[in-house]
Amino acid sequence: MSIQEIEHLLPFVLNPKNIARYEEGTVYIGDRSRYPLEKTAVKCTSVEEVAQSIEKMVTQGAGPWQAAACGLALAAGEADKMPHDQAIPHLEKAQARLVATRPTNTAMARRLELAMHDVRQAHANHHSLETAVTNWLANYREKIYADYVARGKYGAELIDDGDGILTMCFAEAAFILAMAFAHESGKKIRVFVPETRPFLQGAKLTAPSLHELGIPTTLITDGMAASVMAQGKIQKYFTAADLITLDGHVVNKVGTFSQAIVANYHRIPFFAFAWGFDPTKPDRASIEIEERNPEEIKSFKKMPTTDPTIDAYYPAFDITPPHLVSGVITKHGVYSPYNLAALAS
Amino acid sequence: MSIQEIEHLLPFVLNPKNIARYEEGTVYIGDRSRYPLEKTAVKCTSVEEVAQSIEKMVTQGAGPWQAAACGLALAAGEADKMPHDQAIPHLEKAQARLVATRPTNTAMARRLELAMHDVRQAHANHHSLETAVTNWLANYREKIYADYVARGKYGAELIDDGDGILTMCFAEAAFILAMAFAHESGKKIRVFVPETRPFLQGAKLTAPSLHELGIPTTLITDGMAASVMAQGKIQKYFTAADLITLDGHVVNKVGTFSQAIVANYHRIPFFAFAWGFDPTKPDRASIEIEERNPEEIKSFKKMPTTDPTIDAYYPAFDITPPHLVSGVITKHGVYSPYNLAALAS
Repeated sequence: MSIQEIEHLLPFVLNPKNIARYEEGTVYIGDRSRYPLEKTAVKCTSVEEVAQSIEKMVTQGAGPWQAAACGLALAAGEADKMPHDQAIPHLEKAQARLVATRPTNTAMARRLELAMHDVRQAHANHHSLETAVTNWLANYREKIYADYVARGKYGAELIDDGDGILTMCFAEAAFILAMAFAHESGKKIRVFVPETRPFLQGAKLTAPSLHELGIPTTLITDGMAASVMAQGKIQKYFTAADLITLDGHVVNKVGTFSQAIVANYHRIPFFAFAWGFDPTKPDRASIEIEERNPEEIKSFKKMPTTDPTIDAYYPAFDITPPHLVSGVITKHGVYSPYNLAALAS
Repeated sequence: MSIQEIEHLLPFVLNPKNIARYEEGTVYIGDRSRYPLEKTAVKCTSVEEVAQSIEKMVTQGAGPWQAAACGLALAAGEADKMPHDQAIPHLEKAQARLVATRPTNTAMARRLELAMHDVRQAHANHHSLETAVTNWLANYREKIYADYVARGKYGAELIDDGDGILTMCFAEAAFILAMAFAHESGKKIRVFVPETRPFLQGAKLTAPSLHELGIPTTLITDGMAASVMAQGKIQKYFTAADLITLDGHVVNKVGTFSQAIVANYHRIPFFAFAWGFDPTKPDRASIEIEERNPEEIKSFKKMPTTDPTIDAYYPAFDITPPHLVSGVITKHGVYSPYNLAALAS
């Protein structure tokens, strides 16, 4: 299935056009910080503006690498007008600036390097570098969305008519597509979305995305899962994963693990969508949990919620052990968390 | 122990003087909606102003009945200047207006009726009605704080040197005194306080109260308990209870149950402070859970956090079953949740 074929199942924030697009010297980056109250884009006419927008968290999740690729297309448009020997140095400088916006995002760095591979070929053949980048991005997006579709279909198959579904944070396109495919096939579902403090990705991204697709959605707070489950309103729990170790530990937004325990207590299965597996992350000991600035816990939209001299603690992610994971959803199907090593090799 | 003897262990919001006080025709109600950023009081010079302040949630928890009693003292001061036969009708009108501010708060209604009993005796003896109310309030407060102290001491005995403690919402004076007694006795403790969305009682009341007493305190979000427990930082879990049924179900602020499951998973005991037991609440079936306005989930300090057309759900309380409760702390000691019926009779 092409992106065009599933476009009606993609809410505003997951449509590639709105995430980031390059048009004749200008990059438009969908402004997630204003969504859902406003559906706007930040307009950038230089690589530096693109880089600063990424640094200012205008976009998140799957957005930064796409914005960076559009930034590279912008630089390639400039390079096309330069003397032949200055073009590649100009693009390498742009590449370095864009990669530096998210130094820990190795996927972004790897993808920009793939784009540069195509750029170097085009340069050798005296073809348009701008076209090389935009073609690379279009093809790469098709590949990625095909992967989202595959995982979304496997996710949808796990859903029964009448299911109540719990999630956490914003589980990106694989999850939203799973809900959309289930809904489109006539299964009656309702998705319970915890708001996900402190950044409120649940309230700001997940709930509006589902709502936009006409999927019944109920916003709750991060402490309500057990209460809703005890009332029999939840049958499945689905999240994304920032990382799944080869021995089945699911690393995801903090709050995922609390809800996994609570789901297990209520005999509700927990499924995590996996992007892929990193052979350098075999087990729990290989995970490093990012601790973010605790100031973020002490405020809400930059307004203080407590005495600012009080300590706070903000582990960005938590780790759910494999015995609480019912299945890992990959593009090849749903796997036991105890059977992942083969997929990574 | 008198209130004076424990005053150094009472933070701003739990000192009766700051909760509500009556002084020569004026009622001062501590403004919890501005604490901890400001320590201010709302000044009322009529029963109607007191009633409206209670309705506007200037005070909460143990505050409303004390503010109402001060409102009755104000009316009594007015009644003292009236002809003898008009005094009681004037006070009964004030009583009715004050009770109407929180129709489901049966404790407030019962206490104002006790005060009126003393007022009627004073009226029969041509004594000051104002003094009758203020004396009644002072004596009743002493009795209540003696109860807080008793429960606080039993709570403190459960704490070991080096303990990390989890709580939820604002567990009022019994909990704060338990932490204060443990801290004062030289036990090194740290209290982890979930912010408690949507009203943020944890961030606004619990954390600042503990911090004010010099007790090490760490603010977290409502989804972080499992993450903190997995790191070995929590040894005990303590909350208040809005109600404990005679068969040991703990009804408390939503989020309490999720954390109780998570504590049980990590082999961490859960203790609930009980005020008393209501013989009309024998079991789970006798509990009615208040559903509050879901708009409160969709905003923060009245700023929208999501698309306002999305559904939300706000059960104010949840129910933790007795098998997850390690002990119920009463003024008579720590009891098994399976052994409460005798206490109520």
